[in-house]
Amino acid sequence: MKKHRITFLPSERMFDFDDGDTILDAAMKAGIYINASCGGNSSCGKCKIKVIAGDLISSRHPKIPRKDYEKGYRLACKSRPQGNIVVEVPLESQIDRSILRGKDRKPLILSASDLGQLIKEWKADPAVFKIYLELPEPTADDNISDFGRLERELHNILKKNNISIDLRTLKKLNGILREGKWKITVTFSEKNGFYQVIHLEAGNKAKQNYSIVIDIGTTTVSGQILDLANCRHDICTLGESSDYNAQVRFGDDVITRIMYSRKKGGLERLQEAVIETINGIIKDLLNESNVQKTSVSHLVIAGNTTMTHLFLGLDPKNIMLTPYTPVSTVYPSVIARDLGLDTEDHVYAQTFPCVSSYIGGDIVAGVIGSGMSRSEKITLFMDIGTNGEIVLGNKDWLICASCSAGPAFEGGGIQFGMRAEKGAIEQLRINPVNYEPMIITVGKVKPKGICGSGLIDSVAELFSTGILDQNGKFRRDLATSRVRLGESGYEYIIAYRDDTQIHQNIVITEVDLDNLIRAKAAIYAGCKVLLESVGLTFRDVEKIVIAGGFGHYIDIEKAQVIGFLPELSLEKFVFVGNGSLLGARLFSFSKGFMAEAENVSKMMTNIELSNSQKFMDEFVAASFLPHTDGKSFPRTMKMLKNLSLPTVNTAR
Amino acid sequence: MKKHRITFLPSERMFDFDDGDTILDAAMKAGIYINASCGGNSSCGKCKIKVIAGDLISSRHPKIPRKDYEKGYRLACKSRPQGNIVVEVPLESQIDRSILRGKDRKPLILSASDLGQLIKEWKADPAVFKIYLELPEPTADDNISDFGRLERELHNILKKNNISIDLRTLKKLNGILREGKWKITVTFSEKNGFYQVIHLEAGNKAKQNYSIVIDIGTTTVSGQILDLANCRHDICTLGESSDYNAQVRFGDDVITRIMYSRKKGGLERLQEAVIETINGIIKDLLNESNVQKTSVSHLVIAGNTTMTHLFLGLDPKNIMLTPYTPVSTVYPSVIARDLGLDTEDHVYAQTFPCVSSYIGGDIVAGVIGSGMSRSEKITLFMDIGTNGEIVLGNKDWLICASCSAGPAFEGGGIQFGMRAEKGAIEQLRINPVNYEPMIITVGKVKPKGICGSGLIDSVAELFSTGILDQNGKFRRDLATSRVRLGESGYEYIIAYRDDTQIHQNIVITEVDLDNLIRAKAAIYAGCKVLLESVGLTFRDVEKIVIAGGFGHYIDIEKAQVIGFLPELSLEKFVFVGNGSLLGARLFSFSKGFMAEAENVSKMMTNIELSNSQKFMDEFVAASFLPHTDGKSFPRTMKMLKNLSLPTVNTAR
Repeated sequence: MKKHRITFLPSERMFDFDDGDTILDAAMKAGIYINASCGGNSSCGKCKIKVIAGDLISSRHPKIPRKDYEKGYRLACKSRPQGNIVVEVPLESQIDRSILRGKDRKPLILSASDLGQLIKEWKADPAVFKIYLELPEPTADDNISDFGRLERELHNILKKNNISIDLRTLKKLNGILREGKWKITVTFSEKNGFYQVIHLEAGNKAKQNYSIVIDIGTTTVSGQILDLANCRHDICTLGESSDYNAQVRFGDDVITRIMYSRKKGGLERLQEAVIETINGIIKDLLNESNVQKTSVSHLVIAGNTTMTHLFLGLDPKNIMLTPYTPVSTVYPSVIARDLGLDTEDHVYAQTFPCVSSYIGGDIVAGVIGSGMSRSEKITLFMDIGTNGEIVLGNKDWLICASCSAGPAFEGGGIQFGMRAEKGAIEQLRINPVNYEPMIITVGKVKPKGICGSGLIDSVAELFSTGILDQNGKFRRDLATSRVRLGESGYEYIIAYRDDTQIHQNIVITEVDLDNLIRAKAAIYAGCKVLLESVGLTFRDVEKIVIAGGFGHYIDIEKAQVIGFLPELSLEKFVFVGNGSLLGARLFSFSKGFMAEAENVSKMMTNIELSNSQKFMDEFVAASFLPHTDGKSFPRTMKMLKNLSLPTVNTAR
Repeated sequence: MKKHRITFLPSERMFDFDDGDTILDAAMKAGIYINASCGGNSSCGKCKIKVIAGDLISSRHPKIPRKDYEKGYRLACKSRPQGNIVVEVPLESQIDRSILRGKDRKPLILSASDLGQLIKEWKADPAVFKIYLELPEPTADDNISDFGRLERELHNILKKNNISIDLRTLKKLNGILREGKWKITVTFSEKNGFYQVIHLEAGNKAKQNYSIVIDIGTTTVSGQILDLANCRHDICTLGESSDYNAQVRFGDDVITRIMYSRKKGGLERLQEAVIETINGIIKDLLNESNVQKTSVSHLVIAGNTTMTHLFLGLDPKNIMLTPYTPVSTVYPSVIARDLGLDTEDHVYAQTFPCVSSYIGGDIVAGVIGSGMSRSEKITLFMDIGTNGEIVLGNKDWLICASCSAGPAFEGGGIQFGMRAEKGAIEQLRINPVNYEPMIITVGKVKPKGICGSGLIDSVAELFSTGILDQNGKFRRDLATSRVRLGESGYEYIIAYRDDTQIHQNIVITEVDLDNLIRAKAAIYAGCKVLLESVGLTFRDVEKIVIAGGFGHYIDIEKAQVIGFLPELSLEKFVFVGNGSLLGARLFSFSKGFMAEAENVSKMMTNIELSNSQKFMDEFVAASFLPHTDGKSFPRTMKMLKNLSLPTVNTAR
């Protein structure tokens, strides 16, 4: 992507930013504070900057008087530089917050080439593949059966005898052989060295072989369409799509869904809902990639254990009842159409194996997709959502646990919490002098609420500007009307009523803070218990993989500030984005990977945290900002010291 | 079965016969001629005998004057002896025809104990079996998934890891485990060392495991129900049933059925028809055996290649078009219910592999069922119907051929031909003095026509009484009005109009004779060509196995008289009855047998006779009575000499 360099005056900080970003975006990324309270919607008119050199597109906004416009004043949220540029930030906004960063952020998310590297070990060798054959025509001297003829030729090519065919396909064989004048394309599904013929086409269609992979999240379902025939050591993703899981209308989280499944017809309705969502995604993927439905040969599904049960129509009841036993953690392949999926009738849906009720196929997929299960490095894998799923280990051993973080990370239990939709505040910067906020929302519209990553960002900002103390309480002695006693205790007003879409003040309350602290404490404590169970500490961890759509948006340093993530070198962190989708993608590309998925799911030892006293102890210890054990967070503690704020006693 | 001894005077021949037989039956079996022209219906009143000693049940018939009745005269067809008995046969019937037999007939049909012997080599080890398990209940320390728990226990018992489950069954797992309080019965289907769980029942049902085996004949469908759980080295057949194949309404033979399948919707109608027939048989079998439908776990089907195609809904078109390629000769297992069969939804239908378009699964089943493919002895296996299927070989090699015999053996192309139903003449004896016939019909009713085995019997009788010459023509110089010039040439009147159900004279014509001679010549020539192709002659054959429902009724010696079967020692012949059903039965009992069936089907080399000049030559040579090569039929030739009739020149 094209980059431009921006120089902010008077600090003279320079920053390379993406073409298309506004100056507000760039400032936010660079840690330059610019006043902005409408989320980048240009309605507050506060984010004024002055252009010193360079071109930018920025029509005059009513909030900028003509006189000022002529002097070069513009709204940062409305200005898109056309090349390198120098801007001056008005005096009241000249706080350089980059002190917190130590150095420029580096992109941590795995790039496509990193992924290529990651899967290089797996040769493209899909379990569902096509072969084009030109068969000799039958004669009086060679009148074996049509299938015998096919089998003989395949034996010559595959050197295998274990070839079978299902009745549905066999019924079409004689017609297609003759229609194609004995030139046909055969689609196989291989398992355990047995080759099943699942589809036949007249003529040569061997190069049209696609798969669709789906990650069923509790909230979001994502899919990709892959080109299986034309890839070697790379992932040929032709399209991506995602949508909300239509099951949300029956409940927000797995527990409410399981409750719903117990109603009469509930399980069927939940299954139909997710199938409906997947069908929508399949349609989008086909449109986007211009692939014919008839050329899609394979479907791979990963999801948490409850989502997997609901997808297949398995009763999830016992997942929520002690002792939390799922029906199964391995799942049969099924004809996708039999589940109601809108695919050709030869397409099998293969579902990722799970580990336990709360460690699902999405985690198994992520663990393998991230390369962790093939690496020597001791890796901590975290998938963060309502449940935090944590996996620790390397190629030789893997232990895992699930800790109930509560819904705070997904905006649940937070007064103005919302999903990361348009209008969700995702970043907050606070002027440490006057405690005025600057916000950016998803979609750059007036704010409606705060999403999970925005909450982490906000709490870290409130904490590091001294507005919040280590107990997660607002300081009552600050010279700002933004901190006040509201209906449910003390709160900080992020956006005033008039600057919002919802015509209410958007606030963060101490109740919200409690919920967030509990959530981050649970994850941190879970990691700590897993580490201790094998005699390790965070210092021994060589790599931390953060997975999950939400994890994707987390600012590592902000998360470290609040003690959600350990204070390890940023180089150790990688995001794999949707690890589950990545794993599913590899699953479709390589039958070796399939076998590995089953092995890894069996190799993972599940540690039950719900009844662990050790976990409870660690949880309590982590329920501070950043942690009662300040020594583990030296950078944050140093920052607090610089703020000259009182710190809590960290002795336990 | 209880036996009685009957002594016929004045010949003093003694004969042991079955309790329940009439004196007419006994005389027929013993080769004692008694005048009878109504088939045993008592309407002709000709079969008079006189009781000398012993008891019999026989009410006075109007055709016996009271005075004669008091003297001890009875109708043989109405008299059932109650113990040993001595009867006198009236003078005009005192011809002892046992000269033709050489000695008493021995029962050639394999008895149940012979069958037991035959299958002793196959250990009862069904591919579909049940295991009863008592699982430990889940606890917090042992909360693996329900299927994981099952798998672990099965691993301990079966020592196998290759256990899978289908989605339909998996859906029921959690409910049944808890309903059965963790005590359940699991039904498996094994293939290639992989164990698939196909059914679950609460509690211990391991002893209720049954299979149904079906032979789909073109004309007749037969079935048996077997007890899989309670057998070791034996065949536990709990019931048998058969019915006409409902496809007969669309055509009598495979060719007309294939023609019909090409009509719009024809294939579907043919499939539905046979499924309807099988469903009727399943219902009968369950009623007869008192087995619950829910306890039937397996279905095995054998049939000729066309019947197999129609059963599975495979297009049979190319079976009748050169170069005669079936769609396949191996068939996938399918859920029987998906085909419309009235079984539980976990029951798989497994279909016997075939060899070629005209050597079907019934033949493969018969070959293995007869033990031929495990024997050192060079064996000739013949399944006689519209097509004669012949297999030659032993455990090391097998060659086979199909020869179109035409429908004569099934009563087709014969003026009064009919199936072996009630009223079909099955045996004919002729008084060599006055050429008057004695007949017995199926069901002992007035005759309606002649069935296939009756035709062979009749022609042999006509031939050996000198009524017929070696060309298959009636002698025109005999002192009988029964041979006359009819509408379609010369004919012999077996039953006069008044003695029949159809109020027409029942005759055998020279056209009928031509058809029969062509049929027997085709079979004989086919055997000869197969033998010659491996450098053998009939003398090298150590065993002849005659299979097929029709074969069952053939009198070997009569068949030798007309040159249909070679003149080998009677000890070499065995009937296996329905060999196909026998094979299917073993298939269900032993998974080793299943594997063998596929191997044998692949090992059998099909010899195409339709274009063979050698076959044509042999066919022409065999189109005489018994054969142009009289040296191969010394006994018949001697008999002809004794009759002092002119013989044809046998030089070729």
